[in-house]
Amino acid sequence: MKHVLAYITDHRDRFVHKLQRLCRQPSISAQGVGLVETAHLLVSQMEECGIPARLIPIPGGPPLVYSEVRGRSSRTLLFYNHYDVQPPEPLEEWESDPFSAEIRSGNLYARGAVDTKGNIVARMAAVEAWLRTEGELPCTVKFLVEGEEEIGSPHLPWIVREHRDLVQADACIWESGSKDHTDTLNIYLGVKGICYIELEAEGANRDLHSSMATIVPNPAWRLVWALSTFKDPGERIRIEGFYDRVVAPAPEELNQLRRIAESRDEEMLRRDLGIDAFLLDQHGLDLLVRHLYEPTCTICGLVSGYTGQGSKTVLPRWAMAKVDFRLVPNQDAEEVLGLIKAHLARYGFEDIKVRPLGIENPAKTPFDAEIVQVAVETAREVYQKEPFILPLMAATGPMHVLCTQFGTPAVGVGVGYAGANIHAPNENLRLRDFFEGIMHIALILERFGERYRSRAG
Amino acid sequence: MKHVLAYITDHRDRFVHKLQRLCRQPSISAQGVGLVETAHLLVSQMEECGIPARLIPIPGGPPLVYSEVRGRSSRTLLFYNHYDVQPPEPLEEWESDPFSAEIRSGNLYARGAVDTKGNIVARMAAVEAWLRTEGELPCTVKFLVEGEEEIGSPHLPWIVREHRDLVQADACIWESGSKDHTDTLNIYLGVKGICYIELEAEGANRDLHSSMATIVPNPAWRLVWALSTFKDPGERIRIEGFYDRVVAPAPEELNQLRRIAESRDEEMLRRDLGIDAFLLDQHGLDLLVRHLYEPTCTICGLVSGYTGQGSKTVLPRWAMAKVDFRLVPNQDAEEVLGLIKAHLARYGFEDIKVRPLGIENPAKTPFDAEIVQVAVETAREVYQKEPFILPLMAATGPMHVLCTQFGTPAVGVGVGYAGANIHAPNENLRLRDFFEGIMHIALILERFGERYRSRAG
Repeated sequence: MKHVLAYITDHRDRFVHKLQRLCRQPSISAQGVGLVETAHLLVSQMEECGIPARLIPIPGGPPLVYSEVRGRSSRTLLFYNHYDVQPPEPLEEWESDPFSAEIRSGNLYARGAVDTKGNIVARMAAVEAWLRTEGELPCTVKFLVEGEEEIGSPHLPWIVREHRDLVQADACIWESGSKDHTDTLNIYLGVKGICYIELEAEGANRDLHSSMATIVPNPAWRLVWALSTFKDPGERIRIEGFYDRVVAPAPEELNQLRRIAESRDEEMLRRDLGIDAFLLDQHGLDLLVRHLYEPTCTICGLVSGYTGQGSKTVLPRWAMAKVDFRLVPNQDAEEVLGLIKAHLARYGFEDIKVRPLGIENPAKTPFDAEIVQVAVETAREVYQKEPFILPLMAATGPMHVLCTQFGTPAVGVGVGYAGANIHAPNENLRLRDFFEGIMHIALILERFGERYRSRAG
Repeated sequence: MKHVLAYITDHRDRFVHKLQRLCRQPSISAQGVGLVETAHLLVSQMEECGIPARLIPIPGGPPLVYSEVRGRSSRTLLFYNHYDVQPPEPLEEWESDPFSAEIRSGNLYARGAVDTKGNIVARMAAVEAWLRTEGELPCTVKFLVEGEEEIGSPHLPWIVREHRDLVQADACIWESGSKDHTDTLNIYLGVKGICYIELEAEGANRDLHSSMATIVPNPAWRLVWALSTFKDPGERIRIEGFYDRVVAPAPEELNQLRRIAESRDEEMLRRDLGIDAFLLDQHGLDLLVRHLYEPTCTICGLVSGYTGQGSKTVLPRWAMAKVDFRLVPNQDAEEVLGLIKAHLARYGFEDIKVRPLGIENPAKTPFDAEIVQVAVETAREVYQKEPFILPLMAATGPMHVLCTQFGTPAVGVGVGYAGANIHAPNENLRLRDFFEGIMHIALILERFGERYRSRAG
């Protein structure tokens, strides 16, 4: 192990250059920019590390980058990542070109520097360090790097179905993890699910003069009335059966959350957001529990009729809303879609069309899973600080389809920090977080393989 | 009178050329195009007719064209019109250039051909015919032609306040009137009022990832909830006091409406609009009464968050709605604005900003006003058919500010027809309606002056 860590220290500059090279290759899934090029680059970068990699073609999507490296045992750790990035816009708010990967004061600035190219290279680097010093990995490792995470991983269910053997593993290191504003590593054990729908209402066959509103149905009204039955001003979602499967936090989860709540600077967050109070005026532990365990119903978009300057007296022909339901364990996204449709029918809104645009189930790894212990123990060693364990994160990812449905426990660790500006201008990685992240993965590999041997022996 | 009508017949072609010239001059108030040029052209065209005209400058707006021609008596008839037109877009749907004033099969195609340049020229032509044959008008005539009607006549209250004497009259011929699909002239006695507002809600200081919807208020929800308290799915407006001043149709109005309802082809209208049924499944007289006497609350525009293709998980920072309340006698637009604000406060929506964008009171001329009898009698003679009297129209105009507040009775007669495509591509005037319209105005002038003399004598 000592040799492994020394190797990482000796090759720091090379790993940074590798990451810069990867960040300089744009790979914007929402715009279809540079995806195939990035997949090819990644394969060659992995092979430079001694990791045999290949492309798996996906009909209608950019290829998957896949690798499997046998270790001392067949016990397998899966690394899930994505090589695509969010669009860099608004460009004028970047201090350097989002694909220049400029380093300033120890930080590397680039779209994707943290989410998740920094994590990909950290994991490759840790594997390389093992291979070049010990000649072999302590366990078997699989890399699965997709190119569509930022647009909702539309082909991942297909990959899992068609290449089921490739995703089988004993545990998974999820795409990312991050230090919070107290510089404490947050390890994530789960994600919310999502049911993202588009609602459409139609009226006459054209926009009409609004004097016709006496006798012609208005789709904007139909939509507003339908939406208003979804959730009341007290934030209670009114869709029958919606909360039936929701599970309250377990006592050990609440203990973790209490620690985290005490460390948080709510006031700083509130001021940064520019709001007078958090929703329902909640604070402390209640606020944190609500953030992680409460499913949501969010109007993400709304449009109808005339929305320009001044007045135009129009009776719109069409109205549309985008609504995102974030789901918590053990809700089921397909079931929720059915509940929404039944709700609309029950309230007399059969005229409103429902189109699902994103369906993902929530997922959560149990606290007592071995990989959780491994991640926590090794984090203590690397970061010299007790990490926080977040039972869930408020955002969504394809953890259920890739892991939870097969019983594979997954934990998120990685190289982010509170100022990383993920999905925003000036995304950046602190290089010290990058090196610590490489060390952390190297230690996880060792401990994961070791535990198995000790258990097997 | 015989000479007057013969003069009109003899000069038909010249009147058509005059109208073509006026239509070829664009005058789009919404885009600030050609307004001053049109005002100057109109003054010179009126002077060619022997009508001394002048421009009255308006601070911040295009000039008013004004004229007063003394007649045999000081009894005064006011012609209200506007020289501005709606924008011609979408241009690709016009069969000829909207400002070419092309004549095809007896119809003149141009933006503004009917609304209201055709009416302006018809009224000028009738006055010219009297002046050139009888040397004098039977009554005094005032022309008031503004350049901002299509954007809500924002300076008309100022004009009325600053030049009160100019608008004083014994009766007014309102800007327009139209034949319906049975080729029966519809004479309008009133207009609805309007209270057009913009509602705004704000949340955080930027769009956020929708995972924050657990703890950050969503302005789109605030707006939807607030709107849903304005009107229920049974179309009842829930703003306290809103209906207090609404007056039911009088028996003589219902008699007229019954005649009209019997002549209407509801099915044709329904099919043309592409709707399955009229609102609340109403028909016949009920439908017509609802159309004319029911105030409305219409969402004209709605926007928040992401409205493009596909899914984007955003918690919007802002939401906006445009809502138009059409008001009926005797509602008061300023009072309704106050009721809306009080309603929002009562329901806990003080956070929603209300900005008034248009305030006009409803107006209605009594059935028994002398000018109504004059318009009906003369219509019978010219059109050889009993006209319909519409106590109200469903649309809005500045009749209250110009006429009703001074007790001036106003009636709408004019050169439109059911296929005129007002405000739409291929607006057009049937030349026979134009000539009949000139005759009608010439007869109204005679009868209006005559009645006065007989009454005075």
